[in-house]
Amino acid sequence: MSTTFETWRDRFERLRAHKAFELTVITIIVVSALLIGAKTYEEEVSPFQQWLLVMDVAVTVFFLVEILIRMAAEKRLRDFFRKGWNIFDFLIVTASLIPLDDSEMVLLARLLRIFRVLRLVSMIPELRMLMAALVKSIPRMGYVALLMFIIFYIYAALGSFLFAEVDDFLWGNISIAMLTLFRIATFEDWTDVMYATQEVYAWSWIYYLTFIFLTAFIFLNMMIGIVLDVMQKESVQMEIESGKGEAAELHGLRSDVRELRDQLSRMEALLERRS
Amino acid sequence: MSTTFETWRDRFERLRAHKAFELTVITIIVVSALLIGAKTYEEEVSPFQQWLLVMDVAVTVFFLVEILIRMAAEKRLRDFFRKGWNIFDFLIVTASLIPLDDSEMVLLARLLRIFRVLRLVSMIPELRMLMAALVKSIPRMGYVALLMFIIFYIYAALGSFLFAEVDDFLWGNISIAMLTLFRIATFEDWTDVMYATQEVYAWSWIYYLTFIFLTAFIFLNMMIGIVLDVMQKESVQMEIESGKGEAAELHGLRSDVRELRDQLSRMEALLERRS
Amino acid sequence: MSTTFETWRDRFERLRAHKAFELTVITIIVVSALLIGAKTYEEEVSPFQQWLLVMDVAVTVFFLVEILIRMAAEKRLRDFFRKGWNIFDFLIVTASLIPLDDSEMVLLARLLRIFRVLRLVSMIPELRMLMAALVKSIPRMGYVALLMFIIFYIYAALGSFLFAEVDDFLWGNISIAMLTLFRIATFEDWTDVMYATQEVYAWSWIYYLTFIFLTAFIFLNMMIGIVLDVMQKESVQMEIESGKGEAAELHGLRSDVRELRDQLSRMEALLERRS
Amino acid sequence: MSTTFETWRDRFERLRAHKAFELTVITIIVVSALLIGAKTYEEEVSPFQQWLLVMDVAVTVFFLVEILIRMAAEKRLRDFFRKGWNIFDFLIVTASLIPLDDSEMVLLARLLRIFRVLRLVSMIPELRMLMAALVKSIPRMGYVALLMFIIFYIYAALGSFLFAEVDDFLWGNISIAMLTLFRIATFEDWTDVMYATQEVYAWSWIYYLTFIFLTAFIFLNMMIGIVLDVMQKESVQMEIESGKGEAAELHGLRSDVRELRDQLSRMEALLERRS
Repeated sequence: MSTTFETWRDRFERLRAHKAFELTVITIIVVSALLIGAKTYEEEVSPFQQWLLVMDVAVTVFFLVEILIRMAAEKRLRDFFRKGWNIFDFLIVTASLIPLDDSEMVLLARLLRIFRVLRLVSMIPELRMLMAALVKSIPRMGYVALLMFIIFYIYAALGSFLFAEVDDFLWGNISIAMLTLFRIATFEDWTDVMYATQEVYAWSWIYYLTFIFLTAFIFLNMMIGIVLDVMQKESVQMEIESGKGEAAELHGLRSDVRELRDQLSRMEALLERRS
Repeated sequence: MSTTFETWRDRFERLRAHKAFELTVITIIVVSALLIGAKTYEEEVSPFQQWLLVMDVAVTVFFLVEILIRMAAEKRLRDFFRKGWNIFDFLIVTASLIPLDDSEMVLLARLLRIFRVLRLVSMIPELRMLMAALVKSIPRMGYVALLMFIIFYIYAALGSFLFAEVDDFLWGNISIAMLTLFRIATFEDWTDVMYATQEVYAWSWIYYLTFIFLTAFIFLNMMIGIVLDVMQKESVQMEIESGKGEAAELHGLRSDVRELRDQLSRMEALLERRS
Repeated sequence: MSTTFETWRDRFERLRAHKAFELTVITIIVVSALLIGAKTYEEEVSPFQQWLLVMDVAVTVFFLVEILIRMAAEKRLRDFFRKGWNIFDFLIVTASLIPLDDSEMVLLARLLRIFRVLRLVSMIPELRMLMAALVKSIPRMGYVALLMFIIFYIYAALGSFLFAEVDDFLWGNISIAMLTLFRIATFEDWTDVMYATQEVYAWSWIYYLTFIFLTAFIFLNMMIGIVLDVMQKESVQMEIESGKGEAAELHGLRSDVRELRDQLSRMEALLERRS
Repeated sequence: MSTTFETWRDRFERLRAHKAFELTVITIIVVSALLIGAKTYEEEVSPFQQWLLVMDVAVTVFFLVEILIRMAAEKRLRDFFRKGWNIFDFLIVTASLIPLDDSEMVLLARLLRIFRVLRLVSMIPELRMLMAALVKSIPRMGYVALLMFIIFYIYAALGSFLFAEVDDFLWGNISIAMLTLFRIATFEDWTDVMYATQEVYAWSWIYYLTFIFLTAFIFLNMMIGIVLDVMQKESVQMEIESGKGEAAELHGLRSDVRELRDQLSRMEALLERRS
């Protein structure tokens, strides 16, 4: 019986990977998503929307049947939940099954409909790859985030101690000051903040300029570091795959030449013996 | 007859590729374009402008004659419209032939004159290459755009549900919220938007910061991904062009050495037979 | 006795490098840091805070004991202060030992507590590497900063001479003009500055556009230059490590072949002598 | 006599390249430059400033003597003005010789003093290299600038036709519209511009979003293109310098093996003749 499930899973996988089917499902999901947005201000339902609603239900059913078959194809249900993508798919399908017309918690129902757009990620292999790449780069970014936190924290502490009496709304405590510093890091009206504190402390431009240089400097170095890191990994992988071919060729050539020498030595011995 | 057209096409192509001619035409097109801009506020025509008008007509005639010859040089007219650049050139030349002084639709006439500046792209090979590179990178950008759309959509849905009563102009419905989020992604007065919602929901800075980090993070990864993607393709192409040369050299060397071994074996057999 | 200190130093180093211990200390430092921030507006001390205070003291003691052992392990104390990181660690540990409750200089005491967050850098090897990379890139950045200074200076001099009577607050003297130009370089409300001067000098958009293009252009070139510089160094290092292997292989091969030739020549001489 | 000038030129060049001398001159030039800035608001001259003035004159004299010797060392004066850097140095030295205290044209005199800071570029070899790299990248940037101009021009024409009645200050004619579009490209209060036109034309967000995407897209592609272009040139150069070594080695090896074959053939013929 397990084999029939696997053939069904293969069929669904092939259907899912089919470009025309993929495009149809993407269109249905995107248009449905856009219509939920539109619904926030218009109440009537046009025939096109009615047809789309049917198609949306069809997509939901397709996802449901596909995930059930994938679950049944596993020997044990626990194995299914071992893969991160399976859990992701399961949550989205489950969320899209919760009935919508519950008048009491209409907000939550609507939010659940919104998250259905994530089925796009589950559907398109290229998006899954992009998401996987993003998840992979999280630890690499973690340490830079920590370094940034230290800089933000020290500047926020200084800022809240120095400028709190100038503008309590921007520098009231360390947390608020960190938010203000994030604003400055995005160059968002940072001169207004500076001009206000400069009236009291004329030297305060040093505070802002050193902060901007430090954050921009670290961000730039982070970017270069990540690019180089990724490139080095790629080149090592390429060496393993293709580069060793050339090195192996050279090695083989050298042992060939050594065999030639042995053969020649034998021949020379023969010649010398006879002369 | 087809051959005479082809010689004429070659002549025009050579004239077009001539640096001095190219520079003259570029100057005429750019100065004409700037004068259309100037014309929106001054009405008199100076002798220089009159001369430029004549030159502009000459350029138009050159482009017309050149495209007619290129069309006549093809065996069938359908073949001419198979290449994207030919359609592009045809549309621009056609648009520049529509008479301008039609007083009724003066706006459309003026817009048509504006699009004549696109003849620059048609004229300069480097710009054609740049345009071709841009068109090539569209599918690669497509999936990133889709991922961005999903993030914008989910945040816009959340934003319009939560903040609609705070500021209807910015968060009225999902479409407006997406426009507001695009504004936040460009750091355009995003703190004003945040401070407004923070008065009602003090925790709303989490919404803005996570959104900014997500979009910046994905944009950064997209950039790195594209750079690496392009570089890998280049290196593969370089390996095909030049790299295989070295590998082929190694292969040739190895077969040379094997031939030596065969020859030595024959000689060794001869020596052993005689001894 | 020196050896016992060294075993103790090794033990502390191993404890410090232990992932679970590292994570615990990082958590204690970050949470303590965040609580100092929170303390600026709440006065009561919860049991959790009390426990954290004890843990913070424990971390301080750990750092103190660890640095003392590292100092004792050196033959002479002077050797300890030769390494930049040792001085960095020493300053942070010393600063965290200064008693806090001195009511007279409460501000300085609080600032000292803030700088304790730098123990994170001292603790996490990845942050040390990031910091070292930043310090290394300073000279490379220095010349670009000098070039930027020249451009800013010339534009600031021009700006203060031309626009001082338009807006004394923005263009009063060269130093103020440089700050205004830095604001323009960050695109912070730069059009407001331009529109103000354009009312008096209509052509002043040329001043702003050339400045923006120059700074953006140089910044872009700087980024590319640094990326290429770092990459070239990496590739040279990789050639030294792995690339020479292939070249050495080729060299060996060639001398092998030369030996074959010598052997053959000897054999040919033998053959000819005998015939 | 020419040789004595050349020895003097060598001596000056060595003095100029000396790190301590370089640092002294850089410091004098930078501090002098900053003091000119300061002078715009204070009139008294401190003893330190007097000393600096003397040093500044000394630097001017050094540059003058050095350039005169370099001119005299050339066979013909015309050869001196063939190199771009010589003209650059000559202009700066000449400008710094014009007397300053001319009360009638004090503004021009002050501006001339400002341009003296360019002697830094002439002084520091690293800055010369940076400048040379910038000049080299101008043609590469030229075509991208032309493509940008076309996009700005078309959007400006459309904008001035559509939005002129909404806001004459921002969209009055094509030139003004191009300036407004440049402002939008730098994200400077672009939403204010959009919200104003959206009140009349609700669909006008399409105009702004397509413009922002186009310019950002082209800028991104430009950056990647330039990075790849520079990298390819570097790798070609590295192949010429070091890579050909390996290819030459392989070629040499192959001809060695072919010589072996010829020798073997001769020996085989000898053996067969005798048997």
